[in-house]
Amino acid sequence: MTYQALTPDTLANYLRQVPELLTLLGDMDALDIVEVGDGNLNLVYFVGSRTNPERSVVVKQALPYLRLVGEGWPLTRHRADREAHALKVFGARCPQHVPEVLHFESAQSLIAMQHLRAHIILRKGLIDGITYPNLADHLSSYMAQTLFHGSDLYLSAADKKRAVAATTNTELCKITEDLIFTYPFEDHATNVYSPSLPRAALQRLHNDPAVSVAAAQMKWVFMNQAESLLHGDLHTGSVMVNQTDTYVIDPEFAFYGPIGFDVGLLLANLLSAYLSQDWHRVQAGQNAAQNAAQDPVPYQAWLLEQVAQVWDGFAQKFTALWAAHDASTGTSFMGRGRDDASLSLFREAFMQRVFSDSLGFAGCELVRRTLGLAKVAEIAAIPDATARAQIEVRTLRLAEALLLGRTDFQCISEVTDLAEECRTLTL
Amino acid sequence: MTYQALTPDTLANYLRQVPELLTLLGDMDALDIVEVGDGNLNLVYFVGSRTNPERSVVVKQALPYLRLVGEGWPLTRHRADREAHALKVFGARCPQHVPEVLHFESAQSLIAMQHLRAHIILRKGLIDGITYPNLADHLSSYMAQTLFHGSDLYLSAADKKRAVAATTNTELCKITEDLIFTYPFEDHATNVYSPSLPRAALQRLHNDPAVSVAAAQMKWVFMNQAESLLHGDLHTGSVMVNQTDTYVIDPEFAFYGPIGFDVGLLLANLLSAYLSQDWHRVQAGQNAAQNAAQDPVPYQAWLLEQVAQVWDGFAQKFTALWAAHDASTGTSFMGRGRDDASLSLFREAFMQRVFSDSLGFAGCELVRRTLGLAKVAEIAAIPDATARAQIEVRTLRLAEALLLGRTDFQCISEVTDLAEECRTLTL
Repeated sequence: MTYQALTPDTLANYLRQVPELLTLLGDMDALDIVEVGDGNLNLVYFVGSRTNPERSVVVKQALPYLRLVGEGWPLTRHRADREAHALKVFGARCPQHVPEVLHFESAQSLIAMQHLRAHIILRKGLIDGITYPNLADHLSSYMAQTLFHGSDLYLSAADKKRAVAATTNTELCKITEDLIFTYPFEDHATNVYSPSLPRAALQRLHNDPAVSVAAAQMKWVFMNQAESLLHGDLHTGSVMVNQTDTYVIDPEFAFYGPIGFDVGLLLANLLSAYLSQDWHRVQAGQNAAQNAAQDPVPYQAWLLEQVAQVWDGFAQKFTALWAAHDASTGTSFMGRGRDDASLSLFREAFMQRVFSDSLGFAGCELVRRTLGLAKVAEIAAIPDATARAQIEVRTLRLAEALLLGRTDFQCISEVTDLAEECRTLTL
Repeated sequence: MTYQALTPDTLANYLRQVPELLTLLGDMDALDIVEVGDGNLNLVYFVGSRTNPERSVVVKQALPYLRLVGEGWPLTRHRADREAHALKVFGARCPQHVPEVLHFESAQSLIAMQHLRAHIILRKGLIDGITYPNLADHLSSYMAQTLFHGSDLYLSAADKKRAVAATTNTELCKITEDLIFTYPFEDHATNVYSPSLPRAALQRLHNDPAVSVAAAQMKWVFMNQAESLLHGDLHTGSVMVNQTDTYVIDPEFAFYGPIGFDVGLLLANLLSAYLSQDWHRVQAGQNAAQNAAQDPVPYQAWLLEQVAQVWDGFAQKFTALWAAHDASTGTSFMGRGRDDASLSLFREAFMQRVFSDSLGFAGCELVRRTLGLAKVAEIAAIPDATARAQIEVRTLRLAEALLLGRTDFQCISEVTDLAEECRTLTL
């Protein structure tokens, strides 16, 4: 069948031809199909059994849409192939935090996957001030499992090289190269500056050659350092959570890149959640019955704990997977018969370098979420322009310090201390 | 025609079917064909017109040979495809220093190319104490042209990614990964230690965790940093020279890797030539009619000048190509409208990082040429075991200092000073 964008009706007909889904959905003639996507890039349907709503799947179909951003990018449907492949690879490496792929058809750019019925997007949960007891543990496990098992530390050189060549993702990498690493650092037409953002804050960033150079260096690392299969877009909008589970979704940007990119994006989005709480928690209190501002500090403290625990957990778990793999195979990336001192020293230096990369990438992500085209809801949805600009200035200052000092930070507490310091800046 | 290893007779028949060569060779029925290769990995033939010896070509055919090294590697004929492709790419980027490919047939793993009749292998020329007035200029041009035009600084992101995926070279990279970065740094069965090399020198290198870690870090960069299409084996045995010309041959190890790898291998082999001259020049003097030792110092000074001029020339030319490309396109890797201070700062930091990488790779190459399986003639051919060990100890000490200090060196004169200092070490 040639590609066609499916409607609820044609989707029902399509699904009847897919035997894998019959067991799961039961009666294929009694399905509820609801479109829930925004329709810009993908069609997303919830498909459930009318008789038993527990039986349901999500169907995601890529549209052959030309997303017009500035000079315009053609964005082909092939991103569905990237996403399906990445979901399967990550699912094999970390099944507990990746939705299961139930059916994939490349010709239709269509993926049917596990329906996360009882979960919400993490970004929304954080805006609403919800704590998740397992969040840092789960996200650090996800990153350690996926990033370690895609690297030369685990795969044979031949398997790794095959995987690199097979996962080239030119179109979506180009979006990142432009929208994260380039346009936000110049006065580009696609940038969107919030109405009260002081020109001085913008100029401070745009006029400092050291910032420009740091961003270009991170872009170089992004484009040249094929260390592991990345999610490639691991912000808090790509995570679904509830009090017990954590799932990482939407890996259509997956490609072989630097390990620190996934880590850095996640850290940046947690830091953005932290800085924005000075609006959201206060606002939530004023909206509540008692009409009193909430103290944002306890929730902010919890967010900074997540920052620290995500990094420390990732570093500890990645290193533990590595040491266990070396012990079980009797060899290591370094070679055979290396003494413990060498193995430990190499691992420590490796993680320190990934840490620096992560902080540099976090800095780029914070800048682009403030000055670039794609915003984050926790900041962009603040209706009070002055309050928003205040938080944006703090975000930019944090970004600048991360970019310029990325190789100086020795541990994550120095980063959370810095975030606390930036939080006290006034316009 | 299915693959067959050609003999002089069957090669003559083969060549008659190749119209591209007729114009060049004239009479296809009157050819002199001489096998000149060592027969281990490739058949190499000189093919010339019997009536006009000026009309000649080189024919190189890959053998489907299993090269047994330690645990043994199957080495397929596909390396001929890599070599032919790389010769064409490098020839387009730098025609004056790359032999022209006249005919290639993948099914026969056969390349007919320009015959460098009036040239010798650089390594031999350096052992014999010959100076080449254009050497550093030519080699630095070759590296600047090939390495700049393969990188993200010149190619579009899409072209670069296609090129990376198309030039995966798993088999030959594996040889480098093992024989340069791994085995020489452990007590491996494939290592070959020269008879009088002091155990203390070996242990000093093998027992220092910092050396082990540095080698593993360079291996990581080699395997993960796909910056440009490299020659991949740019030692002085891959260069053919005379007093006017310089050609770089045998790029069968070509793949997308770190820019500093080509640079570092070349620098290491020039440094090895430098240290070995304390034997060769003295020896040449004693062999000569006057039976008096020659002073090696003037030729060694020339060799260190080549080291300095190769690096400085490369850095200057690479930067100039980069600046000219940015000026002509009106944009840059950094983005549009960046000020000169930012552009310069980025270029300087970039070249400094390539310099550090080059020195790290040079350190690995010097270690493997001393302790590993594949030696260099300028050291391995020294018949006096004590004199050889003396030079090996100096080579290892230089390698160690380059590996451990690679990010501390600010300019190439610090490297040549170090080489001079190592030259004074005694057993």
